[in-house]
Amino acid sequence: MRALCWNGSELNFESSQRNPSIDPARALVKVHLAGVCSTDLQIFKGYMGFTGVPGHEFVGSVAEGPEELIGKRVVGEINFACGRCDLCAQDLGRHCPNRSVMGILNADGAFAEYVSVPLTNLHRVPEGLADEEAVFTEPLAAAYEILTQIQLNPGDEVVVIGDGKLGNLCAQVLARTGARVTALGKHADKLKLVKAAGVRTRLLQDWQSRTYDIVVEASGSAAGLELALAAVRPRGTLVLKSTIAGAHQVSLAPIVINEINVIGSRCGPFPDALEALAARRIAVTPLVEKIYPLRDGVAAVTHAAVAGARKILLRP
Amino acid sequence: MRALCWNGSELNFESSQRNPSIDPARALVKVHLAGVCSTDLQIFKGYMGFTGVPGHEFVGSVAEGPEELIGKRVVGEINFACGRCDLCAQDLGRHCPNRSVMGILNADGAFAEYVSVPLTNLHRVPEGLADEEAVFTEPLAAAYEILTQIQLNPGDEVVVIGDGKLGNLCAQVLARTGARVTALGKHADKLKLVKAAGVRTRLLQDWQSRTYDIVVEASGSAAGLELALAAVRPRGTLVLKSTIAGAHQVSLAPIVINEINVIGSRCGPFPDALEALAARRIAVTPLVEKIYPLRDGVAAVTHAAVAGARKILLRP
Repeated sequence: MRALCWNGSELNFESSQRNPSIDPARALVKVHLAGVCSTDLQIFKGYMGFTGVPGHEFVGSVAEGPEELIGKRVVGEINFACGRCDLCAQDLGRHCPNRSVMGILNADGAFAEYVSVPLTNLHRVPEGLADEEAVFTEPLAAAYEILTQIQLNPGDEVVVIGDGKLGNLCAQVLARTGARVTALGKHADKLKLVKAAGVRTRLLQDWQSRTYDIVVEASGSAAGLELALAAVRPRGTLVLKSTIAGAHQVSLAPIVINEINVIGSRCGPFPDALEALAARRIAVTPLVEKIYPLRDGVAAVTHAAVAGARKILLRP
Repeated sequence: MRALCWNGSELNFESSQRNPSIDPARALVKVHLAGVCSTDLQIFKGYMGFTGVPGHEFVGSVAEGPEELIGKRVVGEINFACGRCDLCAQDLGRHCPNRSVMGILNADGAFAEYVSVPLTNLHRVPEGLADEEAVFTEPLAAAYEILTQIQLNPGDEVVVIGDGKLGNLCAQVLARTGARVTALGKHADKLKLVKAAGVRTRLLQDWQSRTYDIVVEASGSAAGLELALAAVRPRGTLVLKSTIAGAHQVSLAPIVINEINVIGSRCGPFPDALEALAARRIAVTPLVEKIYPLRDGVAAVTHAAVAGARKILLRP
């Protein structure tokens, strides 16, 4: 099998490995497309101390596994839970303390010809959905996670801070609920994509400071976090979507003084994302910047790290 | 009138001032006892840039105002709302952007013989409640605020971090719900007070790191905040009770990764606190360290700032 491998200091395209192993609880998935995510870029800076095959956004088809799945197109949830602990018993396998995470923690990922995935993590891709759409299931599910955590009411004033891929998806998902959503960002060209999807947008440079019922921080920057804290009304809700690596200077006093509800939000429900994609409720293909062949993965990752780049995809 | 006055650099006992002014919407309250709070100590370090008479925890009796209140014992909520803005219309006067705050922001406080308080902020003190108990209404209400913000279920594992006055009151209030509460602190003598009130306690030095359903941060220290973030289970709740002045280094990544719900919590419902005090559900008098005459207020404040000091009260 051929794959991109991160050895802790270098990313290399290697072709000498054998296929990943499976067991009766797993399937071997032939990768059709994989997406490069900001988390991957952080891994190349040392995040999680991961080594191996990165990549956790993918769509593929089952090459080995249960007969009824062979040849079927699938996407896969990234947290591989133990199934035996207290959290798994509470249906919180995404938080299983013994979990491995595809391409992030103790499990090889999808920047490869094949990836091994637990059967319980797989979801069938509906007919009529292109690979270029289905590959967005994982990040779109992360956006839908917000709706499982907070109650939005029509008329709620919402701002999504950050005009990158995650901000774009969050803004679309929230706007579909009937809430009054503004996407706030620094890049006119990126905001244009959000606007084309029917969401009100505002350039940060033109924005008048004010407060909102709900603020979603999806910029991934410390400055975005400060802005978010200042933009939540008293007793309002702040959803933190992006992990900002490392410690940074921040005053949490506004959370207490204004009695803000801060909600951390990570991976989300695949069925909701697949249903929205199948119904064409969320526009994802405008987010594709370029598709690289897997063998050019190093160049692809370099491209993905360029400020302002949209989604880079890899095709094995 | 005689009062303690903070001029921005010095606290002085002054006796040349005239009584505070009132209007038909206010009462002049003769202060019986006032409590020194950590916020007062922060004010003397520059917090809020306040100058004037500090003090926001008090019990007294009405000296001037509506006839039916004259001579009645009262306590008073500290946020003086405008009554006309959107937040006031939503019954969120405690967060009114135009508010003044007794002894903290644009309003003289209770380290004085008399204090002027809006009638809407006053609550009658039940018969049979001593001044030494009623003076705890404001901090106890802040502890009861938690119950207005989160749902506690019997069997929930709760830890309160911080064995100071606020931590003590929070631990008692939460333990009365039937939740399994542990008070965690560094001081055996302070924890003894919590234990005497029927709450399980643990010295930090003897504590095995583990996770809880609900964590209440009431230590007021950056170290307490770090500990709190590590002690919340995935999808658990972290209540921030203490404002930690200034920015400090902190990583918020655990909030996102573990999808923690962080809730800022400040001032609370006076009726709940008064009812609990009247029913003797919460022990407060063991928290009294010493009562000083108001004229010795400078010494009293110095005493209150000594590490490990319990509640210092002032009697005009």
